[in-house]
Amino acid sequence: MQRGAEWLSRKMNELGLEHVEVIPTGGNPVVYGEWLKLPQKLTVLVYGHYDVQPVDPLTEWVSPPFTPTRRGENIFARGASDMKGNGIAVLSALEAWMRNGGLPINVKVLFEGEEEIGSHNLEQFIESHKEKLQCDIFLSADALITGPNLPSLAYSARGILFFEVSVYGPKTDLHSGEFGGAVENPAKVLCELIAGMHDSSGRVTLPRFYEQVRTLSGEERADLARTPVSEEEFRQTAGVSQLDGEEGFSTLERLGVRPTLEVNGLSSGFTGEGEKNVLPARAMAKISMRLVPYQNPQAIEEGFREYIRKNAPSTVRWEIKKFSSVPAVLMSRDSLGMHAASKALEAAFGVKPIFRLGGGTLPVVGLVQEKLGVDAVMMGFSLPEDNLHAPNEKYYLPNFPRAIESYIRFFDLVSHER
Amino acid sequence: MQRGAEWLSRKMNELGLEHVEVIPTGGNPVVYGEWLKLPQKLTVLVYGHYDVQPVDPLTEWVSPPFTPTRRGENIFARGASDMKGNGIAVLSALEAWMRNGGLPINVKVLFEGEEEIGSHNLEQFIESHKEKLQCDIFLSADALITGPNLPSLAYSARGILFFEVSVYGPKTDLHSGEFGGAVENPAKVLCELIAGMHDSSGRVTLPRFYEQVRTLSGEERADLARTPVSEEEFRQTAGVSQLDGEEGFSTLERLGVRPTLEVNGLSSGFTGEGEKNVLPARAMAKISMRLVPYQNPQAIEEGFREYIRKNAPSTVRWEIKKFSSVPAVLMSRDSLGMHAASKALEAAFGVKPIFRLGGGTLPVVGLVQEKLGVDAVMMGFSLPEDNLHAPNEKYYLPNFPRAIESYIRFFDLVSHER
Repeated sequence: MQRGAEWLSRKMNELGLEHVEVIPTGGNPVVYGEWLKLPQKLTVLVYGHYDVQPVDPLTEWVSPPFTPTRRGENIFARGASDMKGNGIAVLSALEAWMRNGGLPINVKVLFEGEEEIGSHNLEQFIESHKEKLQCDIFLSADALITGPNLPSLAYSARGILFFEVSVYGPKTDLHSGEFGGAVENPAKVLCELIAGMHDSSGRVTLPRFYEQVRTLSGEERADLARTPVSEEEFRQTAGVSQLDGEEGFSTLERLGVRPTLEVNGLSSGFTGEGEKNVLPARAMAKISMRLVPYQNPQAIEEGFREYIRKNAPSTVRWEIKKFSSVPAVLMSRDSLGMHAASKALEAAFGVKPIFRLGGGTLPVVGLVQEKLGVDAVMMGFSLPEDNLHAPNEKYYLPNFPRAIESYIRFFDLVSHER
Repeated sequence: MQRGAEWLSRKMNELGLEHVEVIPTGGNPVVYGEWLKLPQKLTVLVYGHYDVQPVDPLTEWVSPPFTPTRRGENIFARGASDMKGNGIAVLSALEAWMRNGGLPINVKVLFEGEEEIGSHNLEQFIESHKEKLQCDIFLSADALITGPNLPSLAYSARGILFFEVSVYGPKTDLHSGEFGGAVENPAKVLCELIAGMHDSSGRVTLPRFYEQVRTLSGEERADLARTPVSEEEFRQTAGVSQLDGEEGFSTLERLGVRPTLEVNGLSSGFTGEGEKNVLPARAMAKISMRLVPYQNPQAIEEGFREYIRKNAPSTVRWEIKKFSSVPAVLMSRDSLGMHAASKALEAAFGVKPIFRLGGGTLPVVGLVQEKLGVDAVMMGFSLPEDNLHAPNEKYYLPNFPRAIESYIRFFDLVSHER
């Protein structure tokens, strides 16, 4: 991580940013640089992250995750899309301006190293550098568009709660013949707890889970229904035989405005080749919830703990560890930054971008709303089919020059605003 | 495995057995030796196995699993109890006779190398060596007693069906934010399938699961209730805060005469430290059933497959792999071998042994019943608290000389029968 941060700071220096620093935090360092030479112009804070997701399961990668490999129109590597491709594109746009006489606006550039693990140290960093980070527009390059030729701008992002739940039975793994039938099996208990978290219509059963979830207006539903995304294409991207989810909602609604509960991982007992007759001592699940606007992470966490407390039998012990707690965010569709981004995308792609509800989580967006008082503009060029967080992550190369052009135009459009 | 088999064949040669061979099978070899010099006497076929269980989770071992380590009155090592301790004890008993003028009976000694993975090649081996293995008494040293000072003889063993169930969702792990809520999660489906396999009273819900299970007579239940085993001691051995199981049955009944379904392992998605927001492509469970007499493994397997077929949603694919299928066995309590074993144990321990229902599975017992037409005598000296199949497996050393004495006396008692 340190070497990654230093590489990035050299890159920022080379393209002409000033006061470039690798700034320590409680975790991985932040890389910061700035160019503030036009006091009469607006200031854009460009945000990105240089950390990536773990690579496992490694065996499913067609080419090694840290050897970028071009196949067809894509380049495959961990982080290609999330978000080295977008990061390099936005830095290249700055470089293009620098090589042609300087930027038309002021910029501050901030890359963190903990986005993939919850941005836990970023809050403290922003809090203690409020002055330094003050800006008119916050531009995050960590974002998706809807399709290769369908640019889009997200105006919301789901929040997240991420837990690890452990259920403990016997002190040690037991022989399933000598003890099975007379001792509670913690893997069975964990499965029963998880099975009870959804009802048969796909709704989450945790206490008070939907209490703060707003009902979509007919207008909003109609707006969403007009989004030119085919369910069939989405199904193919997901690689499933059929889509599925909460009854009564479309795919876009399920992804954008409805909260979810997912099992992200399971582990218990013997999982190697063949058989081993154990009654496991412990079972563990990674469980996360995507939250929508107005859901309070703390209240949802309390409901989750209450559910486990009420439903775990007295024959086991259990423990909940929390890894992330981030509320959902809503951004204005009508800001100066959104207008500039929309025009820039239209010019680069020849198509008007659509506004969409983001399914992922962007801790930084809530933080800058709260600490810096600005809404984020989410402009990035990854695609839903880019295997983000999965094996064979890729970046669609034909969009790389369009990405650079979009950022170049964005800075230009913003420069006309003052 | 080959080296283990060769070590054992040297040992058999050294103690005076003849025609010792390491015999190849489709898997791990069988080690065989014999001593057949008294045509007027009975022949005992001594059975054991030289393979052991896997050692994982390795981190839970106090001392390395393959460095036998003495602590207090126990020796700790993988296989100490299952079944190198008992194996060496029975060979030592043969050695004692050999050094004192020869055995009082005829013996054949057979150690297999696949007991812990289902004895898959043993059936073929016995079938093709029926003549060679013909015997009057089959003595298995792979057995438990009830307590350090409470010898016992099992007259039944539960069967086993061992499956690996895989549920497949998307082609690859997906980003849980970009896809979560609109795509079925195979880990959730697997948990729901497992949760449905028991009802709230602890009964297995698979179709026709209990159809062939015999009802215990009042006399049998009374017999069992008289067994001098304290539920409290069993609870402590299991290392749980309370015992649990099918309603309406005692612990001994749950272990001895009731079939079970256990989750032996679970695996899906991300299970490392911290968080990774994946919607897993696959979820896997190891699931086994302990069968009781008269349950037909094939019929139970059909019920299991039917349950999965009926309950798995069409949004996922699934696959079942079978690793073991062994029926339960009942042995006569009134055979010549049982009488000799009972008297031998009483002489060595100073206590009359109890008859008990075994919870584990002994594929070989059913095989020799079927192929050689003899009932097995299960005489071994492992203890329920010896952590069989678990980390920190041990053997209780004060019982080692008693074990040897019991076997010595057993051969002597058998020699008086003809």
